[in-house]
Formats: sequence, C-alpha cells, structure tokens
Amino acid sequence: MTVKTLRLNTRDRETIMKCQLFGGVRPETAARLLDGALVSSHEAGDILFREGEGIDSLMVVLNGLVRVYRSGREGREADLGVFTAGDVFGECAILSRGRVAGAHGQALEPSLIAHIDMHRARQMLAEDPSFASAVMTLLCQRLHDLQDSLAEDRLLTAHQRVAHYLLRHCPEGQAPVSFRLPFQKSVLAGKLGLAPEALSRAFSHLRQRGVVVRGRVIEVHDKDALREA
Amino acid sequence: MTVKTLRLNTRDRETIMKCQLFGGVRPETAARLLDGALVSSHEAGDILFREGEGIDSLMVVLNGLVRVYRSGREGREADLGVFTAGDVFGECAILSRGRVAGAHGQALEPSLIAHIDMHRARQMLAEDPSFASAVMTLLCQRLHDLQDSLAEDRLLTAHQRVAHYLLRHCPEGQAPVSFRLPFQKSVLAGKLGLAPEALSRAFSHLRQRGVVVRGRVIEVHDKDALREA
Repeated sequence: MTVKTLRLNTRDRETIMKCQLFGGVRPETAARLLDGALVSSHEAGDILFREGEGIDSLMVVLNGLVRVYRSGREGREADLGVFTAGDVFGECAILSRGRVAGAHGQALEPSLIAHIDMHRARQMLAEDPSFASAVMTLLCQRLHDLQDSLAEDRLLTAHQRVAHYLLRHCPEGQAPVSFRLPFQKSVLAGKLGLAPEALSRAFSHLRQRGVVVRGRVIEVHDKDALREA
Repeated sequence: MTVKTLRLNTRDRETIMKCQLFGGVRPETAARLLDGALVSSHEAGDILFREGEGIDSLMVVLNGLVRVYRSGREGREADLGVFTAGDVFGECAILSRGRVAGAHGQALEPSLIAHIDMHRARQMLAEDPSFASAVMTLLCQRLHDLQDSLAEDRLLTAHQRVAHYLLRHCPEGQAPVSFRLPFQKSVLAGKLGLAPEALSRAFSHLRQRGVVVRGRVIEVHDKDALREA
C-alpha cells in the first residue's frame, strides 16, 4: 500500500520542474499542481498500484526505479515500461474520474514517488492549454516508446535488441567507450522483453562484436560492428 | 503518393462525426475541422506515408483498410496497428509543426481517406478544450491498445493470442456463434505479430477447442474451451 506522508522539499520540486511534463508549463500552473503534492516512500519490491485499481495521482519518480507490467498465467510478467528519476507515470488516468490502472506498478529499488493530485491535474488540464499540450506531448512520447518496443520485439533478435539499446545509450565519441547500465541486468532483460538467460546469451553473442560486460559496466569497442549485429 | 482531390460528401461527414475523436467535440469546432477537409482515394497496396516523412493531416478512414507498420532488415515488417472505417490515425503529428510519421502507412484494400488539415487541427487544439480532451482520449486509447499488443506478444503463445482475439470479437450469446473476420487472415496475422503460417497453425490448434474456420467466417462452438486455450 502506498502511504503518502511527506511534503515535497526543495530538491523534489527541482526534480519535478526539470521533468519533461513540466518543461513548457506556465509557472503558476506548475505551482498549483505542486501545491499539496505528497511523497511516498517505498522499499524495493513494493507494489505501487495494481491493474484495475483506481489511480488518484499523477506520479513522478523522485528517486529510485519503477516498472509497469502486466501479469499472465503461471506467474509470467511482461514489462511495459521502466521509469527512473524525473519520469512521470499514471498520466493515462488523467482523463476521467475513476479511470483505472491498465497495468501493475512496482518499485524495483528503494524509491521516492511524488503524487500530484489527479483532481487538480484535471482542473489544470481544462484551464491551461500549456498543461494540456504538455500532457499530450508526454502521451505521444509514450506512444512512440511503445511502438519502438513492439516493433523491436517483432523485428529484432535478442542480440539485435541488446545491440540497439547499447548503441542508443553509450556515450558519444570514438570507441572504445564505456558506461554503466542505469539498472540491474534483470531490469534491462524485462525492458527488452527477454528472459534473463536470453539477455546473458545475447551479451555472450555480442562479445564477438566488441562488447565487454563487467557487472553493470559495459565497454563498447567497435560501434560499427555493433551496428551490424 | 497521396492525391487529395475530393471534397467530403454527406456520408463522409456522417462517418467522421460518428468516429470516437469527434464524439465529445463541440459542433462549431467539428464544423471548422471538416471545413476544407479533402478525400484521397487509394488502391490496395498504396503507400500513404513513410516513416520520417512530414504528416500534414489528421486522417480518418472513410472506407477500406489501412495498416501502420515499421520495416526491418531483409524486408521484414512489423504491424503496429490496423485501421478500418471510422478510425483516426496520424494523431501523433498534431503536436508540433514538422512532426514526422513514426511508421509507414499503407492501404490494404481500395480505401478512401479523409484528411483534416493539421494546421487547423492545431489551432482548434489551442482554442477548444473539448477537442484537446478528445485528442487526449484518442491518444490514451491508442496507448492502451499498444500496451495490449506488447503484453500479448510477451505473455501469450500464438494460439492464445488468436483465442483472445476471437473471444473479444465474437458475438454475445450462447455458443455456437459465428462471425466474419473484418479483414483477410494475413492482416490478422500481422496485427497479432504472427507469420501467416503461425496463424494457420494456431487455427489448427484451436480446432480442438471448438473453432471452425471457413475462409473469413469463424465459428466458435465452445467459448469456455477457447478461454482455456
């Protein structure tokens, strides 16, 4: 259960004001949205909401990691999104009273989540076109991300999906480059629609394309080879 | 190439006014959106737009069938959506000038497509909150559909995906029921992320669950057995 007890502190407000949703929103609107916002604190593994439950707040990850997923038979799960600090979720419930969650939400690390009252968000949506436009931009971004995931699932092999992810996330510049995965490999596996074993096999396969994995640190020795994976 | 030559006739206007996007929109706004709208006519197979190209209209299928898809290597394709009469697409380009298509669009049957000028749609978005709310509802519906597809791809076997589709689309009431697929089986295969052969195998597998297929006509003899597929 989500217990919201804390008020936003200055750093929380900064995190929220920097997130994509608040980018183009009028300062007065942002202030009204954040007025009365609360923060909930979660352990790794905590369920934030379940599919079919009502959602009464627009949520922003202040700290930690949240995944949104659906459950199938025999305990199988399908990840639909992973959200890190500054990411917004729950935006689909903004449209009407009683709108329910389309999936489950779970904290994967100790997490702090800001909750913006949904009733107030709906009011702002009707009053301020800059906020409506920001929400639409967020929805379109989410649509695009989901289209990417669906197309990658349908078009790419496991090692191609991993290669794409690495190319999108590795630093600019001449190889060799190295970077740290923003989360555990099991989270990456879920995000890419792979079983953890399939991710391991994909990493092994990519060794011949110049990818070296040390824990969460990834070294890419040859970007061109990776593009051709 | 899309050549828009026709003006909307009365039946076209009726089709558009009945579509989800126009449901809650103020009549004056609807009238302004439709004023100046044009119709393009396409053969089966025509490409309507390509990924990366600018989109200058919000499109409504008046007649026919449109699929939206991405291309991969070696001619592989991944369907992201199939749209029939009354469906709207291209809505993601409404947000900003120069927004480009995130996928290809293709007519699968001889099709008539209404084009609502995107510039005007953006103007209406800024002026009328009822239209902004309708666009947001459409975006959320699309998001939900894409989440369904991604979750089904990741959680269900081929025959389970087909069983789900049949259960969602077969008529209410006591079995046996029968209904006609709204499009060819090859389109259904693409929509469900299956190769045509995999769809055939799934239909064969479902015969033991009381599904009889005759061309595009599907008979479901035992809904409970299908639910347990």
